[in-house]
Amino acid sequence: MSGYFITFEGGEGAGKTTILHSLEKKLQDLGYDVLSTREPGGIDIAEKIRNIILNPEHTKMDGRTEALLYAAARRQHLVEKVFPALEAGKIILCDRFIDSSLAYQGYARGLGMEEVFAINQFAIQNAIPDLTLFFDIEPKKGLERISANKDRERNRLDLENMQFHYDVYSAYKQLVDRFPDRIQVIHAENTMEKVEQESLEMILGYLTNNPS
Amino acid sequence: MSGYFITFEGGEGAGKTTILHSLEKKLQDLGYDVLSTREPGGIDIAEKIRNIILNPEHTKMDGRTEALLYAAARRQHLVEKVFPALEAGKIILCDRFIDSSLAYQGYARGLGMEEVFAINQFAIQNAIPDLTLFFDIEPKKGLERISANKDRERNRLDLENMQFHYDVYSAYKQLVDRFPDRIQVIHAENTMEKVEQESLEMILGYLTNNPS
Repeated sequence: MSGYFITFEGGEGAGKTTILHSLEKKLQDLGYDVLSTREPGGIDIAEKIRNIILNPEHTKMDGRTEALLYAAARRQHLVEKVFPALEAGKIILCDRFIDSSLAYQGYARGLGMEEVFAINQFAIQNAIPDLTLFFDIEPKKGLERISANKDRERNRLDLENMQFHYDVYSAYKQLVDRFPDRIQVIHAENTMEKVEQESLEMILGYLTNNPS
Repeated sequence: MSGYFITFEGGEGAGKTTILHSLEKKLQDLGYDVLSTREPGGIDIAEKIRNIILNPEHTKMDGRTEALLYAAARRQHLVEKVFPALEAGKIILCDRFIDSSLAYQGYARGLGMEEVFAINQFAIQNAIPDLTLFFDIEPKKGLERISANKDRERNRLDLENMQFHYDVYSAYKQLVDRFPDRIQVIHAENTMEKVEQESLEMILGYLTNNPS
């Protein structure tokens, strides 16, 4: 596959979604063919799976059932949306991917990073991202950003206790150590302009050093 | 957990479902506390997952998505129905379980038995069945039985080509070799009376040799 698969990762309030959309625009302005997406990404089967996960009536849902459903939705999103775009030579910018499952479910929820990796490996096969940007911000500062933004809708994860967010952060740090070639650290505590600049340079550097 | 988890496996037309229900009755008559079930087993979340799998509109569903969804439904059925019954000391008779996924999806559909085992291990953790009865019948004879039974509704698997059924059979034979302590062969080509007798003796022998 001739495209590039780039994922954006980090805790709550790290700014990754905002940056992703501004980079999509900048890369397009530079003439690149870019697709931005996030799971379930409008894929019918993946949306239906996500609806089961998020249904508030499903209070009995087990953590492992949930992890398997996320992996299933991930697979279908890959097959129907990411793989065709990669084959068409596009640059995919994907908001959250396998590392989110490892950090949130594997580590912070306590299912085990190795075990969650195993089911995700089944789901993605060799579709490990070419490049992953980790938006590094201390959880307390990320959550303060969210509080300051009155327009942002609060989701279930914003309301977890502080320990949970520090566990997620700790897991991402472990992943950076484990996959130093793939995962690059973005200093997300800087101003958005600086974060955007650092992210753009990281991606352009990768594209230059890895011609398709 | 003080109960017994017994699974019934085999190809189409092997008679396992019929025998399961007659054994449920016989074991109850002998004073045992028995629960018979099959996935998704009336569990709301598992039923909804199964509906996604079986929805005929989902022609784009990938084989790996399907395998992850089966594992998710399996997990929820275990947590909500099987585990509580095992804790209550019941004998669970379950129509198909992990070996069906290994045989049908892992081997016959070509996803890989080891890989399908990995996601199922995540789903079931240590809930490997105590005893598995494999109803051994040559696929051609099993399918002839189905054809002779005018009342039986044809399902999607009955209509697969003959090679598929022989692949499933071959996979079960491999599983018998791999798990000789857990999986016991029932000679399902015999008359139903003999098959029922052999199955009952197998289960009673197991219960006697493995007091809870």
